[in-house]
Amino acid sequence: MRVPLATARALATEVLVGAGVSARHAAQQAAVLVDAEARQVPSHGLLRLPRLVRRIAGGVADPRTCGSHTWLSPTYLRVDGEQGLGPPVALHALDAVITAAEQSGVATAAITRNNHLGMLGYYARVVAGRGLACLAMTTSEPLVHPWGGSRAMIGTNPLAIAVPAEPQPLVLDMATSMISMGRVHDHARRGRPLDPGWALDAEGRPTTDAAAAMDGSLAPFGGAKGYALGLALGAIVSFVTGSVPDVDVRGTLDDEFPSGKGDLFIVLKGAQRPIADFLDQIRATPPINGDRPVTVPGDGGERRARAAQDSGIDLDDGLWSELLALRAATDPVARANRGQASQESEESCRL
Amino acid sequence: MRVPLATARALATEVLVGAGVSARHAAQQAAVLVDAEARQVPSHGLLRLPRLVRRIAGGVADPRTCGSHTWLSPTYLRVDGEQGLGPPVALHALDAVITAAEQSGVATAAITRNNHLGMLGYYARVVAGRGLACLAMTTSEPLVHPWGGSRAMIGTNPLAIAVPAEPQPLVLDMATSMISMGRVHDHARRGRPLDPGWALDAEGRPTTDAAAAMDGSLAPFGGAKGYALGLALGAIVSFVTGSVPDVDVRGTLDDEFPSGKGDLFIVLKGAQRPIADFLDQIRATPPINGDRPVTVPGDGGERRARAAQDSGIDLDDGLWSELLALRAATDPVARANRGQASQESEESCRL
Repeated sequence: MRVPLATARALATEVLVGAGVSARHAAQQAAVLVDAEARQVPSHGLLRLPRLVRRIAGGVADPRTCGSHTWLSPTYLRVDGEQGLGPPVALHALDAVITAAEQSGVATAAITRNNHLGMLGYYARVVAGRGLACLAMTTSEPLVHPWGGSRAMIGTNPLAIAVPAEPQPLVLDMATSMISMGRVHDHARRGRPLDPGWALDAEGRPTTDAAAAMDGSLAPFGGAKGYALGLALGAIVSFVTGSVPDVDVRGTLDDEFPSGKGDLFIVLKGAQRPIADFLDQIRATPPINGDRPVTVPGDGGERRARAAQDSGIDLDDGLWSELLALRAATDPVARANRGQASQESEESCRL
Repeated sequence: MRVPLATARALATEVLVGAGVSARHAAQQAAVLVDAEARQVPSHGLLRLPRLVRRIAGGVADPRTCGSHTWLSPTYLRVDGEQGLGPPVALHALDAVITAAEQSGVATAAITRNNHLGMLGYYARVVAGRGLACLAMTTSEPLVHPWGGSRAMIGTNPLAIAVPAEPQPLVLDMATSMISMGRVHDHARRGRPLDPGWALDAEGRPTTDAAAAMDGSLAPFGGAKGYALGLALGAIVSFVTGSVPDVDVRGTLDDEFPSGKGDLFIVLKGAQRPIADFLDQIRATPPINGDRPVTVPGDGGERRARAAQDSGIDLDDGLWSELLALRAATDPVARANRGQASQESEESCRL
């Protein structure tokens, strides 16, 4: 079904407030999930919401905290996420390091014990919107096999890079796996085969059977180089934040474990050299296929996000019904009371 | 021919001193080039030395400066490389930002107008040797076509990441092109075809003819993702350092243009979580092919570097003769005088 963005955000916000999240944090979490839908990355969209509600109910996601901050220096922020929701914790930290980078040219936030961020590019885009460049990294459960290895040992370890430009920033947001496990699940549900080279089964054999791949492992993108990149990104996040290595990460794909991943943000001022003209030169490169012009990272997402503002997003009927049922499960009075209590508790999160 | 490492370093150093480089800077430059030979990356090895000597003679490489430093804050160093040699300028800057990061947790060096660095991983390894993590980026001449584009617009824009570990750090050092232009030249010289998908000719047509590819463009590694990564790395370097975008970079593959690229180093302290056990788990992943155990980025280079300490390096006879001729072109007395003068001028480079 097709749903206006505002309707989707409102429902997600109400579900979260019903689960005990303050109005402001619920709006942040809802905005991140619905933005992923608008960019047509449903694996990072509203399908994550029912799990988040279960995690709050189960006590492995704290609906109120936005993390506790320890500054090791004026430019180095260590954040204990205290199992808060990913977006409020990360946005609260980013607000602080953006201010630090504006003053000092570079600043970093090293975050542990934070729930799933949603799309990493969202945060990099926030930084670019403030006129600064951003490198963002996060670890995840082991889903990817090393190059030449037969077992999942490495996270899908995404990297986001944003660089300010007019009219829109360059925003890279890529996992280091060939495909997402969400896509494997989607293929399995539709009974469609995977492409050769995408995945191994649980015994480490190449497979095109999506159901078999769900218990197996994903290939790294780009062969040996992509493997090396994903491993190195996970290692630097673990080293710097103090989070467990990928192979031991839990808590972003389940209902029961506290989140063990790490998030690392680096924010950079600089010579502010405008890159918009260069990006236009890239877009104007003569294409190999005349029907498919060259695009710059983030162009497609931005176009889809703008289209969604006018025409809404396509959502799975079952998912929408599930969200409506989640909202119905808390009555409006209880929701209002919970919202009020959380509103008070989150005052400490304002900068 | 096979040459002991010390012999190769001594000859390279003497050639550089003969060209007017101080003994200390010559030793730094020689060590970086010979280290690439030891790791069997000849494209970044001694074949770069004759060009460097020509660049010094032509006035587009300054044999004495190690750059001028401007601190925008206690953690943010802007370096005007003053067209100095890549390794002395970069190592001088790194020394300063390592100290800053030890104190503040994070520090960055944004370098412009610096000659070719050689292997980027060398610098990341230096940082890891001091117990800190490093992200290193640099731009280069446009050699790579955008995904779906038919013309070279983007540098091979490498990324290096190093994370301390015992007995050796994890060191990723990868270009974002499928292969290096050096390898294309090597195939052309040997009359060997390229693999399909590696390169386009000057008209943007796929080619396996190495000679045709020399005037064309290289494919990005990893398809659309690798393209996006390379473009984003170049863009963030250009934005932060103020260097020209990739498409306008000159001066690392020619004898005549000042270097226009940018170099960006980010050095991070952190929770110092040991990653050695995790790396051992990765190495112990059951391999797909029993004869080929899983390796960690940097393992192969380290193994080759150690072997080279015992058994030396294989060098092209023609290249070795060229280096001997370069040394012979300056007489020892002149060399000693030049070395003395440079020795004095480089006192300002000591921290």
